[in-house]
Amino acid sequence: MFKTVKGTASDIKDMKIRGAGRIARAGASAMGTFAGNYRGGSLTEFRKDIDTAAKILLDSRPTAVSLWNGVRASTKDVGSASSLEEATESVVRNSAVFVEMSSSAVDQIAKIGAKRVQSGDTIMTHCNSSAAVGVIKEAHFQGKDIKVYATESRPWGQGLLTVKELSEAGIDVTLIIDSAVRSVMKRTDKVFVGADTVTSNGALINKIGTSQLALAADEARVQFNACTETYKFSPMTMFGDMVTIEERGHDEVVDPARLPKGVKIFNPVFDSTPAKYIDALITELGILSPGSVYDVMVRQLGEDIFRMRDDS
Amino acid sequence: MFKTVKGTASDIKDMKIRGAGRIARAGASAMGTFAGNYRGGSLTEFRKDIDTAAKILLDSRPTAVSLWNGVRASTKDVGSASSLEEATESVVRNSAVFVEMSSSAVDQIAKIGAKRVQSGDTIMTHCNSSAAVGVIKEAHFQGKDIKVYATESRPWGQGLLTVKELSEAGIDVTLIIDSAVRSVMKRTDKVFVGADTVTSNGALINKIGTSQLALAADEARVQFNACTETYKFSPMTMFGDMVTIEERGHDEVVDPARLPKGVKIFNPVFDSTPAKYIDALITELGILSPGSVYDVMVRQLGEDIFRMRDDS
Amino acid sequence: MFKTVKGTASDIKDMKIRGAGRIARAGASAMGTFAGNYRGGSLTEFRKDIDTAAKILLDSRPTAVSLWNGVRASTKDVGSASSLEEATESVVRNSAVFVEMSSSAVDQIAKIGAKRVQSGDTIMTHCNSSAAVGVIKEAHFQGKDIKVYATESRPWGQGLLTVKELSEAGIDVTLIIDSAVRSVMKRTDKVFVGADTVTSNGALINKIGTSQLALAADEARVQFNACTETYKFSPMTMFGDMVTIEERGHDEVVDPARLPKGVKIFNPVFDSTPAKYIDALITELGILSPGSVYDVMVRQLGEDIFRMRDDS
Amino acid sequence: MFKTVKGTASDIKDMKIRGAGRIARAGASAMGTFAGNYRGGSLTEFRKDIDTAAKILLDSRPTAVSLWNGVRASTKDVGSASSLEEATESVVRNSAVFVEMSSSAVDQIAKIGAKRVQSGDTIMTHCNSSAAVGVIKEAHFQGKDIKVYATESRPWGQGLLTVKELSEAGIDVTLIIDSAVRSVMKRTDKVFVGADTVTSNGALINKIGTSQLALAADEARVQFNACTETYKFSPMTMFGDMVTIEERGHDEVVDPARLPKGVKIFNPVFDSTPAKYIDALITELGILSPGSVYDVMVRQLGEDIFRMRDDS
Amino acid sequence: MFKTVKGTASDIKDMKIRGAGRIARAGASAMGTFAGNYRGGSLTEFRKDIDTAAKILLDSRPTAVSLWNGVRASTKDVGSASSLEEATESVVRNSAVFVEMSSSAVDQIAKIGAKRVQSGDTIMTHCNSSAAVGVIKEAHFQGKDIKVYATESRPWGQGLLTVKELSEAGIDVTLIIDSAVRSVMKRTDKVFVGADTVTSNGALINKIGTSQLALAADEARVQFNACTETYKFSPMTMFGDMVTIEERGHDEVVDPARLPKGVKIFNPVFDSTPAKYIDALITELGILSPGSVYDVMVRQLGEDIFRMRDDS
Amino acid sequence: MFKTVKGTASDIKDMKIRGAGRIARAGASAMGTFAGNYRGGSLTEFRKDIDTAAKILLDSRPTAVSLWNGVRASTKDVGSASSLEEATESVVRNSAVFVEMSSSAVDQIAKIGAKRVQSGDTIMTHCNSSAAVGVIKEAHFQGKDIKVYATESRPWGQGLLTVKELSEAGIDVTLIIDSAVRSVMKRTDKVFVGADTVTSNGALINKIGTSQLALAADEARVQFNACTETYKFSPMTMFGDMVTIEERGHDEVVDPARLPKGVKIFNPVFDSTPAKYIDALITELGILSPGSVYDVMVRQLGEDIFRMRDDS
Repeated sequence: MFKTVKGTASDIKDMKIRGAGRIARAGASAMGTFAGNYRGGSLTEFRKDIDTAAKILLDSRPTAVSLWNGVRASTKDVGSASSLEEATESVVRNSAVFVEMSSSAVDQIAKIGAKRVQSGDTIMTHCNSSAAVGVIKEAHFQGKDIKVYATESRPWGQGLLTVKELSEAGIDVTLIIDSAVRSVMKRTDKVFVGADTVTSNGALINKIGTSQLALAADEARVQFNACTETYKFSPMTMFGDMVTIEERGHDEVVDPARLPKGVKIFNPVFDSTPAKYIDALITELGILSPGSVYDVMVRQLGEDIFRMRDDS
Repeated sequence: MFKTVKGTASDIKDMKIRGAGRIARAGASAMGTFAGNYRGGSLTEFRKDIDTAAKILLDSRPTAVSLWNGVRASTKDVGSASSLEEATESVVRNSAVFVEMSSSAVDQIAKIGAKRVQSGDTIMTHCNSSAAVGVIKEAHFQGKDIKVYATESRPWGQGLLTVKELSEAGIDVTLIIDSAVRSVMKRTDKVFVGADTVTSNGALINKIGTSQLALAADEARVQFNACTETYKFSPMTMFGDMVTIEERGHDEVVDPARLPKGVKIFNPVFDSTPAKYIDALITELGILSPGSVYDVMVRQLGEDIFRMRDDS
Repeated sequence: MFKTVKGTASDIKDMKIRGAGRIARAGASAMGTFAGNYRGGSLTEFRKDIDTAAKILLDSRPTAVSLWNGVRASTKDVGSASSLEEATESVVRNSAVFVEMSSSAVDQIAKIGAKRVQSGDTIMTHCNSSAAVGVIKEAHFQGKDIKVYATESRPWGQGLLTVKELSEAGIDVTLIIDSAVRSVMKRTDKVFVGADTVTSNGALINKIGTSQLALAADEARVQFNACTETYKFSPMTMFGDMVTIEERGHDEVVDPARLPKGVKIFNPVFDSTPAKYIDALITELGILSPGSVYDVMVRQLGEDIFRMRDDS
Repeated sequence: MFKTVKGTASDIKDMKIRGAGRIARAGASAMGTFAGNYRGGSLTEFRKDIDTAAKILLDSRPTAVSLWNGVRASTKDVGSASSLEEATESVVRNSAVFVEMSSSAVDQIAKIGAKRVQSGDTIMTHCNSSAAVGVIKEAHFQGKDIKVYATESRPWGQGLLTVKELSEAGIDVTLIIDSAVRSVMKRTDKVFVGADTVTSNGALINKIGTSQLALAADEARVQFNACTETYKFSPMTMFGDMVTIEERGHDEVVDPARLPKGVKIFNPVFDSTPAKYIDALITELGILSPGSVYDVMVRQLGEDIFRMRDDS
Repeated sequence: MFKTVKGTASDIKDMKIRGAGRIARAGASAMGTFAGNYRGGSLTEFRKDIDTAAKILLDSRPTAVSLWNGVRASTKDVGSASSLEEATESVVRNSAVFVEMSSSAVDQIAKIGAKRVQSGDTIMTHCNSSAAVGVIKEAHFQGKDIKVYATESRPWGQGLLTVKELSEAGIDVTLIIDSAVRSVMKRTDKVFVGADTVTSNGALINKIGTSQLALAADEARVQFNACTETYKFSPMTMFGDMVTIEERGHDEVVDPARLPKGVKIFNPVFDSTPAKYIDALITELGILSPGSVYDVMVRQLGEDIFRMRDDS
Repeated sequence: MFKTVKGTASDIKDMKIRGAGRIARAGASAMGTFAGNYRGGSLTEFRKDIDTAAKILLDSRPTAVSLWNGVRASTKDVGSASSLEEATESVVRNSAVFVEMSSSAVDQIAKIGAKRVQSGDTIMTHCNSSAAVGVIKEAHFQGKDIKVYATESRPWGQGLLTVKELSEAGIDVTLIIDSAVRSVMKRTDKVFVGADTVTSNGALINKIGTSQLALAADEARVQFNACTETYKFSPMTMFGDMVTIEERGHDEVVDPARLPKGVKIFNPVFDSTPAKYIDALITELGILSPGSVYDVMVRQLGEDIFRMRDDS
């Protein structure tokens, strides 16, 4: 019975399926297939089985926020279903809706976000977010005359990917070092960054340095936009989990040969931008205040989510 | 008559004399020597000649704030002198005072600043300022238990020099990338940075990124100290000059071979930290509010300075 | 079939029906009538026809936020209906609910807002908003002892209408020039203003100068309330549209005869107040944080709204 | 028919049932019993009778926010029910859900909140909130190494209860006077306080002094968490009611014998913390932004709530 | 003996001598003439007589800050003089210095301030200040490419004078209403305004609305410069006097015929901008922080000023 | 030779002379007497002897800021004197000036500060400062209609002294607990507090809780005034000394019998208010910005102070 589900779980575990979006859709699809093929059993049995299926998938990557969203968005109406048929159909339908919405999410975000760009705008971006870059390219594609500053984004230097991508699209783009953010903010109109995770109270977890852009934007009355698929809204944070911020090795920052003896290196990958510095979350479901994140999650995952507190 | 003066000017121009402090003292010494050797002539003639001497020196490096200070601190009482003797003596004396004060300035700043460090403090510094590093080393030398975060300070990476110097002194030091400033500020007690120039209304011109430390310190109620010899207070800014912030080449930031075609680079060397983010200026003349800079300059340079507005 | 709908559309276009509230209710009523009279056809056909009807109405005034709300609030359950009867009934019912709620909205806002006024309060208002004036008059009517400052509201001087209306109601009212807002804010307890449009992330678009009141209120810890019917919440902004701020002619500001040659005039009608300066949105559905606007819109318009992204 | 309801109302009135949570659950239970025992009558009659039952209960303690929530959460689906059976069942079910959720609310908040505490954290709390104390004790119980500062909380000195409770649990706790809040905030990582009431636009009404902790936390970039059962979200504030802040007598502050003649005392019990200073509301339904309070209330009480505006 | 002094006092009283600068110079000149012509008497007598002379002048216009400065700057070294000759000479000299400095003050401010303008800057100004307009015209004259927004400055509309003056000088200038200040601030680089009075703790008293520009500039990280001759620094405020802000009549704001019955008008002429919003005071003695005002006053007026506390 | 000096030192040490002002004046007088009686010896010897005298006095109470000021204000011109006579006379004169100024300082502050109070003002004060209370009483004495809120000021409850003193003077005064400061600040116009010490960069060290008043005043745009004799400006802080904030015993806060076992108490006496929250320092030398403190100190103590860096 759990064959497809186990296969998908295994592919996720083995990294055959990668990327937040793809993992989420694989999880949702597996749930849809499972429910679509479900035979025999009572509603009560189905509820037990679908929970087992969900658990198998979630265990393949316990910290993957998007997987959680894909799986739980699929099962959200099982609790309130009044018959087996209704329950399985709801999973099939919710799974399909999730897959469809999430597939087009980056494109939708690009379209929605691009409307917020006006000809003459100077934009700043950080790191290399496909959603943020998508917004900028779409605005340019629409013929808007824009200028972009992209940060180098040490230690990996993803800013070089960003400037390459934007330059190839014909956009006027300038690279700056990360220390120049506040200096350049004075001449910036809007900031667009991506998201790794969004917490239930509206904080943005993203590439280290993001919160400095946000702080400097707030100081200079510059609009700060975070582009994020809603499957990055973290249900775990609803129930108190703090997002663990990975710390990475020394050699990413300094060639060990050049590092003076005894010197330590602190190399966190992400930082947290408080809700108060975020003007808009640009999602495939539209533009939100950070104050609306909790409600979007409840709507996406259903009120069943509250029964899962203890497992979160 | 102007031989020594011309010699010094020439050495400054040819970079035989380098460094803000050394240039300033060379200028002051040349003025002292000139006045000490002055023979014949009336007070009126001396005033004219000393102006010529000053001009020769200042022209050797017109944008050098410290040179201006060394020269003008020496001549500050010439205007109010009532005899030739009084005038020449004042130059000799003021020149000597300037040289003495400036020679020991970095040491004095270290001693004064170190008192503001308490055992248990976590300190952040930026770039590689001898005054700021001096404060930290002095505090450690006094047996205070401290922990230091030093920024990488791209593009030149002077942070590596700082961590090397502090580590060799036996201090617990951690290197961070420039994007991690706001993230690490939460665990910081005090910031100590250096200064390139201080303006008459109390703004701090220093290594690009300094203003980000200041902004993040202000947000987190962390004390922000700028360590600066008073000869870095810019008299030119009294009369409106904006400090020109040098922009440097592309290749400092990215290996030209890796830079995507069409991508521009903006590489300013300094930024400007507004007075409101500075808790204390630590100088060899003690600890000041940025609101006192103008008055220190008037006291150092004398009221004659107001007659020089049009030449500034 | 589309006769009533076309008639209403035509009346809206020809300005026979005017005012945000009246237009919204006319649109909703036309939808209700259309659905109530719908004969024959399958659910699928009805869905197509009701879309056509909606389109006819919306095209009559494409930028009218309230019309959009009236029409779409009526159709919100069509997508989830499982039979033609259920669908038509939902439109009739939703249309009626919308009309009823919106008809009494200003009165409800007055009642709700007036509770926030306390005897002894000094209130500031801007321009001439019927909702804000309604709140003030209701508070006075309840016997509360209040004092009001109303801004002149250049260039049209609608402040004169406001002071007239309040004075006739027996309220102690003082007119001030727009430049005196910050000065008088020190003696103000609460601000009540109206709304032209509210964006999905909680920004308030209203008469030019509103954001200055909000900024000055925030500086002085004065409560800033915006009184707004929920049909002014803009669904277009959910999908990225920026509210276009109309610029009007020179002669509204200066008599052309007095305008020096070569001088330009910039005369925007509205400005945008960021969510962070708004303490409360006072609506007919109660008092909200700006962080709740998106969710109110989703609840009012139904999840169908997400399928309309590309048409928005 | 109203016997149980009247009995409960009477017990609430006579203070036999006390405490916000117990009152709320008693009200909800009485509603569930009433509906479970309901016999005969049409849906229309039931709607009238259940309204009478609700009124009897609410009148027993008109200002008790939690009672309002217990009663109205039970009746929320009556308006949309299509048969008597559906209506009575919904009340029985909603009543039971409310009782269950609210019974475990403090425990759930402790579990959720404790996840936000990290080993090494220094926590500040104010007054004596069972929810906030629960969070701290749970974090300690989980083996986290924490340090707590508790304010004295004049005039009643509930801080002594808090330090007693925490100290008995083996927690490192330090008492401070209320004036030391800003001074100690510099060494604090997180604040946890309780709630008396939360308003629909996200303000927190709590023990006098709470807003000072919030302000000082905001100044120092310290996370400010309010721990609150959702039955403390006030539906009355949705429709404009200001929370009345009780003022208590002189003798609580100064021994009348020591009070100089002619001196007045102002002794308010609560103050109001604006939403902008609150990072997270920790509820049994998870962690929210203050921007989500209105929506949680609408979801808990149903859209029927809007029909109750005039009675509120 | 007091003939010249009395004549000047009378001309000031009768408004034959008008304008802050002219009054100040007339007062200083009269003091210089008085001292230059002083015959006979001891130093003690002179001190008494010069005080009488000062009193005669100051009584002619007791609230004129500039007159106070002109008179007291002239007498500042009388207290420390050791002979009659030294005393009279000091008055003659100080009087002449004051007259010379103040005569050229507006020109000096223009030269100094213009250096702070850069090609490409957009400038905002308020009301019609000769010093601020001088800065802008000088910058334009130097060939800098600038754009200016000038506020209408109700109720007198002095903004029309400003736009006329700037437009005639060939500057690109746009008039805005006072309510548009915050809206336009987003596209502004620097603000230049004038000053009526500057207080000893650095607050700026100027045309009503100035503080709104300052607040909006601070919010948007726009440099706020106040252009002021130092004779506008108020010695009276050193000893506690609050600057009285004149309130003017109704008819300046509304044609009495159009004013609804019972409506009051509050029409203050100035407002007060706190020091924290002022980046720079541009004076003829250079650019200051508001933190330096007190010290400039002590230097200008001499330490004798402290003996005058009780007369202030 | 050092008899008087030693006697005074001994009286200070034995607490026969107490209070910041009295200690300062005793120190200054002893210096004046010493110099007035000085016989024989060269200028060089005198300089050595006067240093010895100063040292004897300062050692009697090494942390007493006011003593330092009294002694050093007396000797400030010794360094620049050109003869023994000039040197001794300067000490006699400077000593007398200091004694005179400091004796009348509290009265002068009352007169100066009272001018800043306007009829109708509501004032808040903290603890029991004779300077702040003096200002309030003087304003009342001048017939101004004022209302005062005084904090309880735990743990010693000096607020009771304040309300007693003000009430006896016939002033309308209300006592509040320290936690009510932010709550009451909304209805306050001006804050007046005293000072223990003022640092060279303008921070105010005063009774614990003062910085909370300042923070809450800043949030609500309420004027914050610190009343301080200039002999409280700390020269030690010029050279880096941090003001040590005394921590006092447990029993001041809780009756040891009531203190739960294991509970710690942190009981600091003072806190530090940053310069940015202080609108005005009201001193006997007039009203200053915190930005002027350094310069006042230099003027009071003379440039000799810089030679004392290493001894500070």
